[in-house]
Amino acid sequence: MKRRKFIKNAALTGLGITTFGLLGSNGKMFFGDNLKVNRQRIEDRIKELAKFGQDENGHGYRVAYTKGDIEGRAWFMQLMKNAGLNPSIDSGGNIIGKRKGKKPSLKPIAFGSHIDMVPDGGNYDGTLGCLSALEVIEVLNENKMVTEHPLEVIIFANEEGGLIGSQAMVGQLTDDGLKQISQSGLVMAEGIKAIGGNPADLQSAIRKKGDLHAFLELHIEQGGILENEGLQIGIVEGIVGILDCQITIEGFANHAGTTPMKLRKDALLAASKLIIAVNEVINSVPGSQVGTVGKINALPGAYNVVPGEVTLGLEIRDLSWEKIEMLLNEIEKRATSIATESKTKISFVREASFVKPALTDKSLQQKINESALSLGLKTKLMQSGAGHDTQQMSNIAPVAMIFVPSVGGISHSPSEFTTAEDMTNGANVLLKTIMSVDRE
Amino acid sequence: MKRRKFIKNAALTGLGITTFGLLGSNGKMFFGDNLKVNRQRIEDRIKELAKFGQDENGHGYRVAYTKGDIEGRAWFMQLMKNAGLNPSIDSGGNIIGKRKGKKPSLKPIAFGSHIDMVPDGGNYDGTLGCLSALEVIEVLNENKMVTEHPLEVIIFANEEGGLIGSQAMVGQLTDDGLKQISQSGLVMAEGIKAIGGNPADLQSAIRKKGDLHAFLELHIEQGGILENEGLQIGIVEGIVGILDCQITIEGFANHAGTTPMKLRKDALLAASKLIIAVNEVINSVPGSQVGTVGKINALPGAYNVVPGEVTLGLEIRDLSWEKIEMLLNEIEKRATSIATESKTKISFVREASFVKPALTDKSLQQKINESALSLGLKTKLMQSGAGHDTQQMSNIAPVAMIFVPSVGGISHSPSEFTTAEDMTNGANVLLKTIMSVDRE
Repeated sequence: MKRRKFIKNAALTGLGITTFGLLGSNGKMFFGDNLKVNRQRIEDRIKELAKFGQDENGHGYRVAYTKGDIEGRAWFMQLMKNAGLNPSIDSGGNIIGKRKGKKPSLKPIAFGSHIDMVPDGGNYDGTLGCLSALEVIEVLNENKMVTEHPLEVIIFANEEGGLIGSQAMVGQLTDDGLKQISQSGLVMAEGIKAIGGNPADLQSAIRKKGDLHAFLELHIEQGGILENEGLQIGIVEGIVGILDCQITIEGFANHAGTTPMKLRKDALLAASKLIIAVNEVINSVPGSQVGTVGKINALPGAYNVVPGEVTLGLEIRDLSWEKIEMLLNEIEKRATSIATESKTKISFVREASFVKPALTDKSLQQKINESALSLGLKTKLMQSGAGHDTQQMSNIAPVAMIFVPSVGGISHSPSEFTTAEDMTNGANVLLKTIMSVDRE
Repeated sequence: MKRRKFIKNAALTGLGITTFGLLGSNGKMFFGDNLKVNRQRIEDRIKELAKFGQDENGHGYRVAYTKGDIEGRAWFMQLMKNAGLNPSIDSGGNIIGKRKGKKPSLKPIAFGSHIDMVPDGGNYDGTLGCLSALEVIEVLNENKMVTEHPLEVIIFANEEGGLIGSQAMVGQLTDDGLKQISQSGLVMAEGIKAIGGNPADLQSAIRKKGDLHAFLELHIEQGGILENEGLQIGIVEGIVGILDCQITIEGFANHAGTTPMKLRKDALLAASKLIIAVNEVINSVPGSQVGTVGKINALPGAYNVVPGEVTLGLEIRDLSWEKIEMLLNEIEKRATSIATESKTKISFVREASFVKPALTDKSLQQKINESALSLGLKTKLMQSGAGHDTQQMSNIAPVAMIFVPSVGGISHSPSEFTTAEDMTNGANVLLKTIMSVDRE
């Protein structure tokens, strides 16, 4: 259905476009739709950027605000300059490069990602989106094409440390946030200064609702769905909300030799039942929700003592906050039964650091799908289970995200990998979608 | 059955005894069987001994080889001297007091326990057995009674640190054992020196098989069985064997947001299933066996990462080593299924520190039962889930243990408590049993 509808639309749109029409050397008429990114350039630049912050073993430590990050940003800004983007750094530390459009009254179409990484991270997370954004500009330059809208390439600062740059851009970076210690060891405010930002003037970094026509981000999937299903392009419906909960199970610590099985109040046995219950509850309804117990601590923690107290770290993610609440509620019900049956006490405390879901724009989703299908790529509407700057940008603009496959679903690891073909596909879809958004 | 048989035996034995017959002040004939311990003296001495090593909050730290232990031992030796026991310290640090019997050719009946404690321990574990042993001597002294066999009161050194004194006494304390760091912070050999032993001459501490007629130990139960069943005396069938196993579950650490439920290899979910399987296997057969998962560590241990590796500490205890092996085998079978179904790898490594079960002497069990029943006390044949010096002594002599209730089953804690009535019952059963053993 969707595919047929697209072909029809594409045909209509194709006929309607004149702005981008230009005469090729072969004398045939073609459109922005026919532009293609340079695969070799993307691949080369991915490798070049990977060297910044890399240690002698080839592992990446381009953590925000560190030497590798600062040097990588300088290298990137030079490329932006070369591409005529006239880059500047806003007070939050974000790098912004601008390209004029034909109609200055139109709002900019922005796109980009981040180049900082987690410690011992991978070379594709963030960087692919940044280099592809730059690639879009390079292709337009090479083809001497000017879009209707102004374009902006944004390289967000310190994404991995809590979406710090994009928080600043949408006016949500607080004084408390500035006081946190970043992964680099620097207090956040000092880190922002180290990369050329100005934490004393965060106001100037703020983009207000309606300031941008749209924001798009190409990113690696960081999961294994596309690869598993043999698909090339993920169209992100939204970035999941995250609810973290600390669960405490109180039993009674007792001698593991002298306490008969039936007289025990074993907190770890109760915790095990609850971990299985979490899995069952999460899997009990259709959808892409995930629930994880990633942390466990059992006290006193000795071979010869029945555990008296266990704490668990539970995380639930979904695109619907209502669903998250419903799932937590079911888990709490199961916990009540487990507590009764195991003679333990189970309590839940929500962490303050929850994240509400961020939905992407349906019209942009449609344009990404059309662009991908026209390139013969197979797509899937999917959620982003990981956080991205796009979720912050959704506060001020219609947003969209394009995913490409991660080999083995591996991310935040030196083993992170995306093939040159998949990177090229993603960059072409980004380019095509921007063209499509521009001419709407 | 047992009760009736006892009454019959007691009647017969009573008639047969002449050795202990003496004329009471009321002119009536009575026997050693009629002797009673002094409840007040036991209670007072328990309180007095508790002061050694106690901190300002009333918590006990009479850890072996520390000041509290050394001072407590000196106090105890003085009481032994006063009681004519002529105490000495063997090269392993054990205090041994001797009382002559009528027939020097007979082998000594030995009894005792330990006065060292775990950090923040209780005031009854070990001390009750020591003070009751001394009480037996006091009562015999007061009644001017001499047994046929020589008697020995043994206060073992550093029971809580691994049955060190009793290991030395049975010739099992190795050079490696001497090199271990004790809870006091001293290397074991230095600790033994600190309490008057001589680690360079451990040979002289060794008692060989057949050197003792019997060894008996009165101890608090450290579990809740007697209290739960309203019984006063536990007759220990044996001290359980202990098998410790480290279990490793290898899954795959992955992003908790981007990894769909069905693509996970969650090591903690698999570990939870295994913990429940351990519980089910242990409860699947009749008996007093116990199985505990007391330790767990999940890596990397973050809210947002599916655990990739979990290690568990499993301990199984029972009087039958064959049963322990059978239970472990069943658990391993369950682990194989869980590994397959959860796409994880599960491996078991046995710790070197296993303990083989030690059985007590059936004839001594019978004598304890008869003694208790004659005092109107209710008994139960039970295992000792905790380790005791008696298990070492079982290598060289027929052994027995008498248990009295622990309130709430609590032990190794400042809340450890046994009522004066229960302590008195236990000491009377010890006294009566020694008399019975002596005249057989």
